[in-house]
Amino acid sequence: MALPKQGEDFPAWYQAVVRDAQMAESSLARGTMVIKPWGYAIWEAIQRAVDDRIKATGHENLYFPTLIPERLLQQEAEHVEGFAPEVAVVTHAGGEQLAEPLILRPTSETIIWDTYSKWVQSYRDLPLLYNQWANVFRWELRPRVFLRTTEFLWQEGHTAHETAAEAMAETLRVLHEVYVDTAREILRIPVIPGRKSAAERFPGAVETYTMEALMRDGKALQAGTSHYLGQNFARAYDVTFQGRTGEVEYAYASSWGVSTRLIGAVIMAHGDDKGLRLPSTLAPVQVVIVPIYKTDEERTSVLEVAHAIAGDLPGVKVKIDDRDEYRPGYKFNEWELKGVPVRIELGPRDIAAGNVTVARRDLATKEPWPIDSVAARVRPRLDEIDDTLYSQALAFREEHTARPQSYDELRDFLKAGTGFAIAPWDGDPETEAKVKADTKATIRCLRLEPGGVEGTCIVSGRPATEEAVFAQAY
Amino acid sequence: MALPKQGEDFPAWYQAVVRDAQMAESSLARGTMVIKPWGYAIWEAIQRAVDDRIKATGHENLYFPTLIPERLLQQEAEHVEGFAPEVAVVTHAGGEQLAEPLILRPTSETIIWDTYSKWVQSYRDLPLLYNQWANVFRWELRPRVFLRTTEFLWQEGHTAHETAAEAMAETLRVLHEVYVDTAREILRIPVIPGRKSAAERFPGAVETYTMEALMRDGKALQAGTSHYLGQNFARAYDVTFQGRTGEVEYAYASSWGVSTRLIGAVIMAHGDDKGLRLPSTLAPVQVVIVPIYKTDEERTSVLEVAHAIAGDLPGVKVKIDDRDEYRPGYKFNEWELKGVPVRIELGPRDIAAGNVTVARRDLATKEPWPIDSVAARVRPRLDEIDDTLYSQALAFREEHTARPQSYDELRDFLKAGTGFAIAPWDGDPETEAKVKADTKATIRCLRLEPGGVEGTCIVSGRPATEEAVFAQAY
Repeated sequence: MALPKQGEDFPAWYQAVVRDAQMAESSLARGTMVIKPWGYAIWEAIQRAVDDRIKATGHENLYFPTLIPERLLQQEAEHVEGFAPEVAVVTHAGGEQLAEPLILRPTSETIIWDTYSKWVQSYRDLPLLYNQWANVFRWELRPRVFLRTTEFLWQEGHTAHETAAEAMAETLRVLHEVYVDTAREILRIPVIPGRKSAAERFPGAVETYTMEALMRDGKALQAGTSHYLGQNFARAYDVTFQGRTGEVEYAYASSWGVSTRLIGAVIMAHGDDKGLRLPSTLAPVQVVIVPIYKTDEERTSVLEVAHAIAGDLPGVKVKIDDRDEYRPGYKFNEWELKGVPVRIELGPRDIAAGNVTVARRDLATKEPWPIDSVAARVRPRLDEIDDTLYSQALAFREEHTARPQSYDELRDFLKAGTGFAIAPWDGDPETEAKVKADTKATIRCLRLEPGGVEGTCIVSGRPATEEAVFAQAY
Repeated sequence: MALPKQGEDFPAWYQAVVRDAQMAESSLARGTMVIKPWGYAIWEAIQRAVDDRIKATGHENLYFPTLIPERLLQQEAEHVEGFAPEVAVVTHAGGEQLAEPLILRPTSETIIWDTYSKWVQSYRDLPLLYNQWANVFRWELRPRVFLRTTEFLWQEGHTAHETAAEAMAETLRVLHEVYVDTAREILRIPVIPGRKSAAERFPGAVETYTMEALMRDGKALQAGTSHYLGQNFARAYDVTFQGRTGEVEYAYASSWGVSTRLIGAVIMAHGDDKGLRLPSTLAPVQVVIVPIYKTDEERTSVLEVAHAIAGDLPGVKVKIDDRDEYRPGYKFNEWELKGVPVRIELGPRDIAAGNVTVARRDLATKEPWPIDSVAARVRPRLDEIDDTLYSQALAFREEHTARPQSYDELRDFLKAGTGFAIAPWDGDPETEAKVKADTKATIRCLRLEPGGVEGTCIVSGRPATEEAVFAQAY
């Protein structure tokens, strides 16, 4: 089961890793996937991290229905334009045709804001700081496992506020304290936070913020978004409240989400030619112990030591791979493919010498450790690996970020599709469209604090208003 | 917001508690609900407990698609008969009519067993011990929040085994070690585990096991089921494997689930005329501190002590209700309605005396505690409350369980609908149907170990084969 090389055929490498590491497979309905236990356990770790941060920033979870009357979608003009082409529609149920078709939520602003109109009467009812974990459905033209699937899992936060300033602060708080923090501390992926250009905004948003990550093929991946919706949804669904001075006002909104797409980000940001490389924060197995033996007697004594080592690692996810039907070399490859951070090899000769052999997945190195030092050294080693994965991803991004000085340079860099290009931009959608037409690259984001940009637009030569981060993207 | 009395109109009481305790509300599509934060937090506690036990018994989580090609449902004859009348159907997506309609999963045996046919080749691939947390859809005729909704949340385990004995052992292990244990330790509800009669079996199952709980109106609630499916689904979806002796065999299956219906069970098993009563294992807030003050100065000093007390309760979910716009009496009622186990009242006079007033929701009693004893006494008090809720529910069930000696006695008891009646039964579906026609009651379950039943059937007078537990049910 040799993998295609990343450098030769990245998409084939990705597909093979997803398949051979038993993360997911395509299912019957077009564009749907089965998330298999190894992929799902990674998702559970991501969920836990995101959920902890969502709660720590003052939000509560709740759950809205999947099925939404079709008419609700029509009420916000930009939103319907963005999502209507992608929705799936239930027309029959309980053996009868429905009087009104129901759509499967592609996102839940419509039903949530329609409900908020009942929940909000006074400024005292605000803010509403709610989140849900849910499946959503979007009929994608080019589905790709984890990255774009007809059904995917995500969380979607939907908050309502008294003032524009509060809603904007919320939008940015979630971007930084929930998403960027999870990317850095848990996925161990460096991201560039920023604002989307008008062309890339969420349908119905006033501003969309994003975090963009660089994959090892040089393409960007939008890893999470947080939208400031202004009063658009409050107006569309009539969410008004009596303000502090007695007048009736529309509420201000934010919405934000990350999805199972993050599993794809982890694969493509950290993986190498041997397969996945997982930080310990996500690894379903953090340490695998592979016993090496020939005779039954050796098996017994080696496994005894293996269990003693494992028993001495409380709080570490350890697996002893005692399958007799596979040889050690096969097991080494399999656990490397699955990205397990630390492998401990243990045979009769090691035991005689009082050692184990410890392999680290990040650097592909091995070294002997005295058996009695394992308990103390594993946790620091896992932390080291996590830090290395982050540093490597950061170094890779820095090596693959250009600051071109001319349009020719920008164009050639972006056409090659090998990373981020940062350059001053004039804020004109036509300039942006020209870059896309010339290179297939888009503006991934605008640096968070605009203003103060010096110089001229790299495309048009007119005065620049923003610093833009361009790249080809998933 | 006075509640209807349980004894006068139980259904109205239930509806009012669900509404006023902010647990859920009906949504737009027929039979769907919004699970609000108070209800959802209870669900999260249930999920955590069930998930921990599912993993502790050796299962892994994964995720299958919601959308299932309609033809798959047709492949198991009893299953399609049971579920076809309830399914919702997607006929259009992405702006086009689908070549083949897709159903929304009412349960996932069909797609999972179709997929297992690819995953299972040899006995070495078995067992498969998988579970998913998911939403499912059943077009119910008489929806009722938490109890029967068009969409609900649940977990569904689907396992595949080499032998019938293993699959049966799995079916019963989950019933006892996951479900009955969660009911007893977390929901604090006593349940009767047992086997369903043929008439009440899951469509496609060889045997269905259940746990049945008694609600405070005397009706039974099926709180969780575990099915032994034999080889029915393996045959329907062609899941075969090469056995130890080389021959090709069909795999044996179990499936099992509990759902958001359990939230309804908690409401109706523990609630009283003042609202919810929650065990600390489920309570989103375990201790609420209500400060009592008139002047700003009092407010400051009372809140200071309140925060000191709260800070001294690590691991306890404490809330200080410092809302100025409500009076203490209003807050007392609200937290009683929401079922918070312990309330601490704290005013200037209490502080002067070095005391707080501690109210327990289960017994509706109050007593003074020295402030410096609170930290040590809260956790034991919460445990006491949890035990009391369980004992009360058990005592209620025992008071409402009859052992009638004649059919007249059985019939009158069941028509009154005030609890369980246990009696010998001859195992004949016609006898069962007669009881239902006469009383609306059904056989909730057969005691787990059949055989050894003495005497004659209470309905027919023929020799009894089973001991049956009858009741009217939700």
